[in-house]
Amino acid sequence: MKKTLAALALTGVACGASAQSSVTIYGTLDAGVSRRTDTDVTAVGKRDNNKLGFRGVEDLGSGLKALFQLEIRYEPDTGAIENTVRPLFQGQSRVGLQGDFGTLRFGRALSAFQETSTAFEPWSGMPAVAGYQTDLQVAGYTSDPLSVAGNSLNRFSNAVFYNSPVIGNIFQLNITVASKEANNNPAIIGRGTAAAPQFPANSMAPVNPYSVSATVTQGPFAAYGAYERNAVSTKLWSVGASYKPINDLKLMATYQRQDQDYSVPVNPITKAWMVGANWNVGLGLVRAGIGRKTPDNIFNSPNIAKTKQFSLGYDYNLSPRTYVYVDGTRRKATAAATFNYYSVGIHHNF
Amino acid sequence: MKKTLAALALTGVACGASAQSSVTIYGTLDAGVSRRTDTDVTAVGKRDNNKLGFRGVEDLGSGLKALFQLEIRYEPDTGAIENTVRPLFQGQSRVGLQGDFGTLRFGRALSAFQETSTAFEPWSGMPAVAGYQTDLQVAGYTSDPLSVAGNSLNRFSNAVFYNSPVIGNIFQLNITVASKEANNNPAIIGRGTAAAPQFPANSMAPVNPYSVSATVTQGPFAAYGAYERNAVSTKLWSVGASYKPINDLKLMATYQRQDQDYSVPVNPITKAWMVGANWNVGLGLVRAGIGRKTPDNIFNSPNIAKTKQFSLGYDYNLSPRTYVYVDGTRRKATAAATFNYYSVGIHHNF
Amino acid sequence: MKKTLAALALTGVACGASAQSSVTIYGTLDAGVSRRTDTDVTAVGKRDNNKLGFRGVEDLGSGLKALFQLEIRYEPDTGAIENTVRPLFQGQSRVGLQGDFGTLRFGRALSAFQETSTAFEPWSGMPAVAGYQTDLQVAGYTSDPLSVAGNSLNRFSNAVFYNSPVIGNIFQLNITVASKEANNNPAIIGRGTAAAPQFPANSMAPVNPYSVSATVTQGPFAAYGAYERNAVSTKLWSVGASYKPINDLKLMATYQRQDQDYSVPVNPITKAWMVGANWNVGLGLVRAGIGRKTPDNIFNSPNIAKTKQFSLGYDYNLSPRTYVYVDGTRRKATAAATFNYYSVGIHHNF
Repeated sequence: MKKTLAALALTGVACGASAQSSVTIYGTLDAGVSRRTDTDVTAVGKRDNNKLGFRGVEDLGSGLKALFQLEIRYEPDTGAIENTVRPLFQGQSRVGLQGDFGTLRFGRALSAFQETSTAFEPWSGMPAVAGYQTDLQVAGYTSDPLSVAGNSLNRFSNAVFYNSPVIGNIFQLNITVASKEANNNPAIIGRGTAAAPQFPANSMAPVNPYSVSATVTQGPFAAYGAYERNAVSTKLWSVGASYKPINDLKLMATYQRQDQDYSVPVNPITKAWMVGANWNVGLGLVRAGIGRKTPDNIFNSPNIAKTKQFSLGYDYNLSPRTYVYVDGTRRKATAAATFNYYSVGIHHNF
Repeated sequence: MKKTLAALALTGVACGASAQSSVTIYGTLDAGVSRRTDTDVTAVGKRDNNKLGFRGVEDLGSGLKALFQLEIRYEPDTGAIENTVRPLFQGQSRVGLQGDFGTLRFGRALSAFQETSTAFEPWSGMPAVAGYQTDLQVAGYTSDPLSVAGNSLNRFSNAVFYNSPVIGNIFQLNITVASKEANNNPAIIGRGTAAAPQFPANSMAPVNPYSVSATVTQGPFAAYGAYERNAVSTKLWSVGASYKPINDLKLMATYQRQDQDYSVPVNPITKAWMVGANWNVGLGLVRAGIGRKTPDNIFNSPNIAKTKQFSLGYDYNLSPRTYVYVDGTRRKATAAATFNYYSVGIHHNF
Repeated sequence: MKKTLAALALTGVACGASAQSSVTIYGTLDAGVSRRTDTDVTAVGKRDNNKLGFRGVEDLGSGLKALFQLEIRYEPDTGAIENTVRPLFQGQSRVGLQGDFGTLRFGRALSAFQETSTAFEPWSGMPAVAGYQTDLQVAGYTSDPLSVAGNSLNRFSNAVFYNSPVIGNIFQLNITVASKEANNNPAIIGRGTAAAPQFPANSMAPVNPYSVSATVTQGPFAAYGAYERNAVSTKLWSVGASYKPINDLKLMATYQRQDQDYSVPVNPITKAWMVGANWNVGLGLVRAGIGRKTPDNIFNSPNIAKTKQFSLGYDYNLSPRTYVYVDGTRRKATAAATFNYYSVGIHHNF
């Protein structure tokens, strides 16, 4: 009786919400000043993705847990969400269960390949101009080609995410599979024509996009292999390894091969490699990397540019949550796209 | 002096905010996999509205309280806000006072009718395809016809909300009145012409939209009656009742009549009924319903479709906050709009 | 070893987030009912900016602190972000350091002038129709003319913010400098032509916009001076003072001069003054003000309207966080733009 009454009365206080709650708010605010030599502007910008997130873990007993995570991404210099068009929870929106079987989640997040490879990149996968994740480390590949313009390049929407447990403290397998659902993409001509594009506006994927990665960790060594096929059937494989000769030094290298043959008629193959290092020096961290991205048919068409990048960065930790940094990079592609880049800023986790 | 100084200095720490705060973060993340037989896609989607909310209650003494609530709604499969065009706080944004006189609030939220009727629907008002709230239980009615395309169908913006106290533990009255303010609607031809639409773009409502509901609860019985008139003077009345023959079984039924005569020249009357049940079985909950929506002039124009829907669902509670579910439904309208629907997923409150 | 493993495994729980966190959620929800005599609508609206914010301070030792603040602004009557086009964190998004040297931050926020002057305005800088900050107190000036339509008028994006310490408990200096970065403005004809506008779409500022303010506080007196130059090189200077003859009464006055000569060929000079008072009476606060805004060439072109405004308001505090209010104002510009305005509502901080 009481129960029925309570359910019916519009109390204005707690309708539709749980009695007890445990949400952790977290995030990153990173901002600084930078200069590119190919423009005459000193800009205020960022080195890292800026996040405001909400997450929680509920213990269901018997080793079972429910997990959720929602992550806003924004530009600190304008206060807008990333690119002003990306979804509110661009970072991720996922819910699922974790147990002895591993972790199974539904929603939107980084694909298995994209999430794994950041641990082998000297800028930790940050989208810094000095970093390699955004372009070189992924061979210019996009995980989400059939989405609205300006959308993320390294996430799956409408997906199921599985992470195995870490087997024998050594091995983990990660699988992401997306539905074929259309997501309001503009038309992509591809191997079609303007009148009959290969992927019309708001297309479904012909096959389910998927991404698989496996990692191995043994003492100072770690390595991964990954394979991904996106919504326009571009295929990418990627391998990487890291080694710690001493505890404060991590050396890393990755190699990628992207095959766009399904939708790109010329130069469909792109290859990229990167080697880098992270070196802890007192309260500081030195980041260094060198990498190259090479289109195919390079001998037949020598004018197609390679991209070369060399970067050096330094973080000075003010606390475990806060550091200031300086980055310098030189990036060479075509003559027009060659520039130096410098930045200083502050990175704060909360 | 100190006070003046503090007020003037830009301290960067606490400007414009209160010294003490008590905000509760709450929400729902529900996601799963579904299949409709009229498409060939297995989709990742939702059964419930997904929420991230912020609310608080401040005790003002003498039985008076201040209340606020802000509720984001989003799609878990893409991370975007609902329909990508709805307001950030689509769920609600309200502030007001509660006391012996009841609850009085200003802002945006479900209308009195829409908020009351969900307690009489076997899917608890969730927008699940298997549920009845979105279409059948409201006779296809919209509370907010003069809003931007893609906007919510069951809320009032620019409104005043009153809920009476529960009188004698039995009776409650709820009233919502909206202003006539224009809200950027596209033109609605209605009983006008394309050149002179009855409701031009960005129209004001000719009369204040309002919504009234009353509920009665007595032992195992509960019932409501509601009347609403929206911004294009569509009128709806709705009645419903529920009964619990045993504590674990709730039977429910509703009936609605929508009259669009003011703006729709043909078949302006829509009628709908629904009967359903909720049955607790151990940690499980069985949901079942059957309903029908019938346009008017059905004998004169037999080709105008009725909609019929039969649904069955099952929740398995992993905790008071988390359950997994399966739904199945059969919906029949015109031949083209007839389909079966199946879904499985996880529902997590935080 | 453990560390490497932990870094590599995709645990689904804490990826990318700090171990400890201390975020304060704060905000304002203000809503009420108002009527303007030049329309026939009673509207639901607001008196104050509505905020939902997240902020934190981290003690780094040695008197050094890291600060961040993110502030959503929204309309309570529709649940939408302000103007439906402003950035998610319209209020501010800033991160930086505070120490003996003062406070240094990067991001987006009120300019030094705009933040300082609100302390000398009887409606505390609220955008109430009865208040003076939005129009009269700033002489109709905008800090951000090269931004998208509908954007904020009193903030700098892409900026560096410095606040000095309060020197000798008396003096503080505040400086804001923005980069020249383009921010998707529509074209502004200015002193150009429609074919060759002075500021084409997505222009960079010709010189860095900047804003400087200084405040002096001594016993019952306080005063400020400010100078600002925006992205279209409009120049504004502003002075103001306040005096407390008794502790519960604060008198205030400001004067502004805006010079738009760089981009406006006719009547480029606007002058404005305002005098007002705040008077605490028991649990109440009386707000009063009178002000005038005068375009230039007033003797040559007497038809160019002056704006005159007289306002009276009353807050009744239900608690330190919550009050109810009533405002009345008379605003006279051209005959067409003359109206009275009345509002009642509730203001709740959380």
